[in-house]
Amino acid sequence: MLVSSAGDSLQRLQELGELVISAIKRGEFPKLEMPDRSTNNIVFNKEKNQFVLGPSQICRDSSNTRHVRSFSQLLWVASFAKTLLESGRTSSLRDLYYSSEAYGVHFKDQAESDRVVSDLECVVGLAREDLGIFPEERSSIFGQVTMRYSVAGYEGREIDLTMSPDGFPIGPALVTAEPVATDAELILAVESGGMFSRLIETGAWRRFGAVLVQLGGQPPRSTRRLVRRLHEALNLPVYIFTDGDPWGMHIAQVMISGSANAAHVDGLTVPTAKWIGVTPADIRKYSLPTEPMSDADLKRLDELARDPRYANPESQRHISEFRELRRKAEQQAFSRFGIDFVVEEYLPDKILDPSDAKRVTKQ
Amino acid sequence: MLVSSAGDSLQRLQELGELVISAIKRGEFPKLEMPDRSTNNIVFNKEKNQFVLGPSQICRDSSNTRHVRSFSQLLWVASFAKTLLESGRTSSLRDLYYSSEAYGVHFKDQAESDRVVSDLECVVGLAREDLGIFPEERSSIFGQVTMRYSVAGYEGREIDLTMSPDGFPIGPALVTAEPVATDAELILAVESGGMFSRLIETGAWRRFGAVLVQLGGQPPRSTRRLVRRLHEALNLPVYIFTDGDPWGMHIAQVMISGSANAAHVDGLTVPTAKWIGVTPADIRKYSLPTEPMSDADLKRLDELARDPRYANPESQRHISEFRELRRKAEQQAFSRFGIDFVVEEYLPDKILDPSDAKRVTKQ
Repeated sequence: MLVSSAGDSLQRLQELGELVISAIKRGEFPKLEMPDRSTNNIVFNKEKNQFVLGPSQICRDSSNTRHVRSFSQLLWVASFAKTLLESGRTSSLRDLYYSSEAYGVHFKDQAESDRVVSDLECVVGLAREDLGIFPEERSSIFGQVTMRYSVAGYEGREIDLTMSPDGFPIGPALVTAEPVATDAELILAVESGGMFSRLIETGAWRRFGAVLVQLGGQPPRSTRRLVRRLHEALNLPVYIFTDGDPWGMHIAQVMISGSANAAHVDGLTVPTAKWIGVTPADIRKYSLPTEPMSDADLKRLDELARDPRYANPESQRHISEFRELRRKAEQQAFSRFGIDFVVEEYLPDKILDPSDAKRVTKQ
Repeated sequence: MLVSSAGDSLQRLQELGELVISAIKRGEFPKLEMPDRSTNNIVFNKEKNQFVLGPSQICRDSSNTRHVRSFSQLLWVASFAKTLLESGRTSSLRDLYYSSEAYGVHFKDQAESDRVVSDLECVVGLAREDLGIFPEERSSIFGQVTMRYSVAGYEGREIDLTMSPDGFPIGPALVTAEPVATDAELILAVESGGMFSRLIETGAWRRFGAVLVQLGGQPPRSTRRLVRRLHEALNLPVYIFTDGDPWGMHIAQVMISGSANAAHVDGLTVPTAKWIGVTPADIRKYSLPTEPMSDADLKRLDELARDPRYANPESQRHISEFRELRRKAEQQAFSRFGIDFVVEEYLPDKILDPSDAKRVTKQ
């Protein structure tokens, strides 16, 4: 199961609490073991094609005065999450940080409370969204999928994700909803809001049978989770369409193989997802309007070239072609051939190409 | 009428075209007159409490070689908008910029094409949204309002804006939809996504009869238009709740009195809207967790103190209290009293206070 129910999450939190209490009752200082998330222990698993945590464990020992602070912060976050789940509420990471004051718990800054939330994810083996904790950012979704809500006040209510022609924000309600039916054939994740709107209003979603996801740059983890769930539950292949630059490539790669930051969280990646472009070859083939790459762009390409997630011939080819080209292009650049070109010509070539379709199925 | 129908917009564009063609037929160089949008001609109208354009006009004269470029750019944007409206499409400002290449029209950068879009707004007296042109950014809305869509494929379909517990993005479809019914009593615009979610999931929207609008910082013009339309069409007072700093104050003030940048566009402001906080007095009263103001914050306060939109006793009082305090607080800071405090205590005080309610009605 990818998303635990509130009941399952509560049980894990309760087990954590019982562990602590029983140690105290035995007259012992409670300790908590968790996987080590430091860089040394993040390893790239070639088989899974993603970052995972190695075998190293760390221990928060309440008998150690240097651990007392982080130990109590962790227990407070656990108890805060329990309150959220019991009352059917959610909290942003920011709100959690400020809420700590109400309980006399101190965090130096939000970076510290965010880190402790990650600690709790490791200890209980759940993602923060399972604990009712969400980031502020939102991306959007639109397409022929029916979702069943489970949030308070909407339990069991279903929504057809074509009902709002502006799409739906991927917020706490949709992330915890259950996919129940679809007429779609694939998921198409796009970087920009302009492209997302274009694909809705031209009816491209119907033509390609596409569930559209607007990423808005590097998408929040909750968006990656929803894409993974739709992919698995509805058996839909995933295509990713971003700007043609190292940052766009990396948006796709993180959706495919995950990130070091989230190496301790399962259920975020779609290893068979495919980056369809804008590739450097597309820039050449379509003579797209381009901008020269900045120093930051070129430096980023060097980093990607050494990154284990890109250690496959196709990715290396894209990187070396970008290095040769030294130019980049946005998704919107296809509009130079008219605003419908991307729907009429480019996407059919990319998505409906039989060899690509085969590759997606084979992977 | 606040938003013109596609038919009205098309007619204005056609009149513009006929003006140009008839001049050519008479053997004259076509000229276009429009209000001057330079700083010299932006004046503050005390009665309306907003920036408007003064009487100065400028002329784009196609017989003047220095005008030929901007004249033809303007006509191209007009013809692009006509194509959009005729085909029921929209375009982002970014897409419009890239689309120009398809027609051999050149813009130096997007800033230039954005400026020409503003020129066209002046010439035809319509906002860019009436011409099918939208920015990329989106904010969100949730509440007891039924809207009737007019976008292609959804003509006449109605949506209840409580159907999605994550809210609805304020995109092209919602901005051009018609409000048809409401059970709400007020509009509450909030700055952060976290606050927006909190007010949905606690049922605060029902308790206060509030249509919730998430601004996400300085909101796009289309969001301000939608708020104004709901305010007028449904007779709902507007409250604005932002972070307690000069930037938050200014988000509210722009919604109330408009901005110099949009002085040529009608239908964006709600002069009776009220900024409810976080005020400097709130920061003191609730002993909120604060951060010290940065130099940029203090400089911004100085600018606001001289700004004609703040030339009223209440605004000046807020500014001088902020200057004394030299500290700022976020909306989320109320969570120090528990995550429901803002719903249980703060907002009822602010929104349900009888003297405030009277003031809103009287304004």
